[in-house]
Amino acid sequence: MSMKAPRGTVDLLPEQTVKWQFVESKIKEICNSYHYQEIRTPLFEHTEVFQRGVGDTTDIVQKEMYTFEDRGGRSLTLRPEGTASVARAYVENKLFGSPNQPIKLFYFGSMFRYERPQKGRMRQLNQFGTEVIGSEDPAVDAEVIDFAMNIYKGLGLKSLKLVINSLGDQESRKSHRNALIQHFEPHREELCHDCQNRLDKNPLRVLDCKKDRDHPAMKTAPSIIDYLNDYSVTYFNEVKAYLDALDIEYMVDSNLVRGLDYYNHTAFEIMSEAEGFGAITTLAGGGRYNGLIEEFGGPNSPGIGFGMGLERLLMALEAESITLPIDQQLDCFVANMGDGAKLEATKIVKKLRMNGIQADMDYQKRKMKGQLKAADRFQSKFVIFLGDDEIEKQEVTLKEMSTGDQSEVSMSQLIEVLKEKLNGGIINE
Amino acid sequence: MSMKAPRGTVDLLPEQTVKWQFVESKIKEICNSYHYQEIRTPLFEHTEVFQRGVGDTTDIVQKEMYTFEDRGGRSLTLRPEGTASVARAYVENKLFGSPNQPIKLFYFGSMFRYERPQKGRMRQLNQFGTEVIGSEDPAVDAEVIDFAMNIYKGLGLKSLKLVINSLGDQESRKSHRNALIQHFEPHREELCHDCQNRLDKNPLRVLDCKKDRDHPAMKTAPSIIDYLNDYSVTYFNEVKAYLDALDIEYMVDSNLVRGLDYYNHTAFEIMSEAEGFGAITTLAGGGRYNGLIEEFGGPNSPGIGFGMGLERLLMALEAESITLPIDQQLDCFVANMGDGAKLEATKIVKKLRMNGIQADMDYQKRKMKGQLKAADRFQSKFVIFLGDDEIEKQEVTLKEMSTGDQSEVSMSQLIEVLKEKLNGGIINE
Repeated sequence: MSMKAPRGTVDLLPEQTVKWQFVESKIKEICNSYHYQEIRTPLFEHTEVFQRGVGDTTDIVQKEMYTFEDRGGRSLTLRPEGTASVARAYVENKLFGSPNQPIKLFYFGSMFRYERPQKGRMRQLNQFGTEVIGSEDPAVDAEVIDFAMNIYKGLGLKSLKLVINSLGDQESRKSHRNALIQHFEPHREELCHDCQNRLDKNPLRVLDCKKDRDHPAMKTAPSIIDYLNDYSVTYFNEVKAYLDALDIEYMVDSNLVRGLDYYNHTAFEIMSEAEGFGAITTLAGGGRYNGLIEEFGGPNSPGIGFGMGLERLLMALEAESITLPIDQQLDCFVANMGDGAKLEATKIVKKLRMNGIQADMDYQKRKMKGQLKAADRFQSKFVIFLGDDEIEKQEVTLKEMSTGDQSEVSMSQLIEVLKEKLNGGIINE
Repeated sequence: MSMKAPRGTVDLLPEQTVKWQFVESKIKEICNSYHYQEIRTPLFEHTEVFQRGVGDTTDIVQKEMYTFEDRGGRSLTLRPEGTASVARAYVENKLFGSPNQPIKLFYFGSMFRYERPQKGRMRQLNQFGTEVIGSEDPAVDAEVIDFAMNIYKGLGLKSLKLVINSLGDQESRKSHRNALIQHFEPHREELCHDCQNRLDKNPLRVLDCKKDRDHPAMKTAPSIIDYLNDYSVTYFNEVKAYLDALDIEYMVDSNLVRGLDYYNHTAFEIMSEAEGFGAITTLAGGGRYNGLIEEFGGPNSPGIGFGMGLERLLMALEAESITLPIDQQLDCFVANMGDGAKLEATKIVKKLRMNGIQADMDYQKRKMKGQLKAADRFQSKFVIFLGDDEIEKQEVTLKEMSTGDQSEVSMSQLIEVLKEKLNGGIINE
């Protein structure tokens, strides 16, 4: 029983990894177009990084982290999300000192959350994310949202919903916070234990509670939108103007809060509206986190970013029946008969590979018929036949499987001929 | 202090990640040519997977694993190496049932070992590895070694040393084991505590001991090469014949044992001989592990594989002063003056990106001079100038930075013109 993958984790086998590779390479192309650069942070951090960077009052930090002591007694935690680590790295590596502000970063990586596993919710999940740190320009907020949307659109998704909100700056959040406390305080005893705690520490999160969602005070709770100060309103309006300029459709939802403590100003989520997608429809979420870098001891460096679940992206592709253009055919299978021919076959296979031609051969002592079956299973475009005769004549028989055409090719010309036939001289594109 | 990356881990920043991307994409090309497919297993496994798959008596399992209990009380371990996980996945997912034997897999991923950090030895390290499971053909052993060597050679490394050995089959290992016990037993009391244990459980590992390496009995210890039975000798000779056919130079070293318990028959290591590489010269190591799949409850499925450290690969490239051909120039920077122009600039930037042209703009309210400096820092190939005049005329000024040539281009023709100039119509290759 323990010889299975741990609960909430999966093995990705070749039939899946080809899809992951395709999606990741498409995303990397988009990163390149958007001029974002990659950062890789460790898979675990000192636990304090997430307590401070994600927020002590969040469910993630309170209930879902994989925290353990290493052999030196340090408390380490497998990262539950990407932003806190990048913020820590931005400060530790003094990226604020670079003249290229804002620093535009992207990351790919596994995140770990101890939750009840279900469809679209794994304990080890994979995310792509971006962080733009060092600028407080509403055009950046629009760029980041545009970036996320273009990944989905670039892969062919159509049933998408973008929801945005403003959580305001510190001042606006404080007024709203006070209003929330005043609003809920008379109902304190009617709320769940968690919410009573939240009311003291982070009343905004009461609005996210699943237990108390039907309490009548929820519906009448003060909305952040009514507490935004002038600067926050102007900032939000500018973000919307840039989104309009970029032809990006969105809905404003004043209830959008996001689970992490550090957000302010722009918050957004992208959902799938595809039928049969599943109960959890959020594909990506993000927002602005001015102040977070100071939490880590850095200078004032406003930031914004998003994280997107790659498992859910693949689920969305499936829900919309999008077939990714993946070529799974083998270029060339080298079939051989006889021990001398086998030795020669390994040399030809190597030569093909060194020239960028994908090649394989039999390692199961299969007879010719079995070898041809293997070539068929690999959907091989070409098969080379090699026997003692061919070796003596220093040539091979080359068969094009789609047409059945067969010809004798001298060993010395084989690479040239195959390259030509495979793709007019351009291969492995 | 705790706001730093954990000891033995590092952040890879953009100046490093571009090198990692290049190396990884080169390796993936080679994987494609060799017709290996990717597998991704979880970052942690049930601890038993490594106890059984790596071996209870190894230093890795005894001293170096990151083992912890999850919130459900399961003992989990961050993977210290790749083979045990792949073997577990091969069995759990019944890959032995596929007609495409052997299954040829590759993986990229982080491994975790609690060791004293030093140059070339991190607590979170990154490996590329392959596993070929389901064939006991000496030609496979040669292919796997050839694969590893070609990665290094393909990246331009020259100072390489390949060392091979045979550990023989079970019968040979047993005879050798008995001979080792007989040889060391009279000296038991003179050996270190660990070796006294090893002598009972896995005497082969006594030969690896760093404490007892100067004990006189070490030099006279029986060599595995003298205990190989006929089958093992023949197998090893065939491996060597295939290596010769593939023009691969190697040295046989009968002391090469490898740290993991599961190896038999072929074992190999690739070392860097570059000056100034550092004390730990091993770049990659691997070997055959017939019997491992049965350990995990699968049928008899002989396997062979290797793991290579990517940190060390990058160190070797540096030691040999190899410059990777990485293009870090930005395609196009869009400079703008005035608020209307900025909104328009975001639209142009987006349009360029949607057409695969890498583009960026200013988000720091920089004046024109500051924007041009930013474009310079990005080594931008082209700069587009956009002001209110240009917007009215629906054109932009396009400057080619390498020549200083400047021209007016209508907005409607901009993409076409830029694509043409950037690469004769082919971009982002």
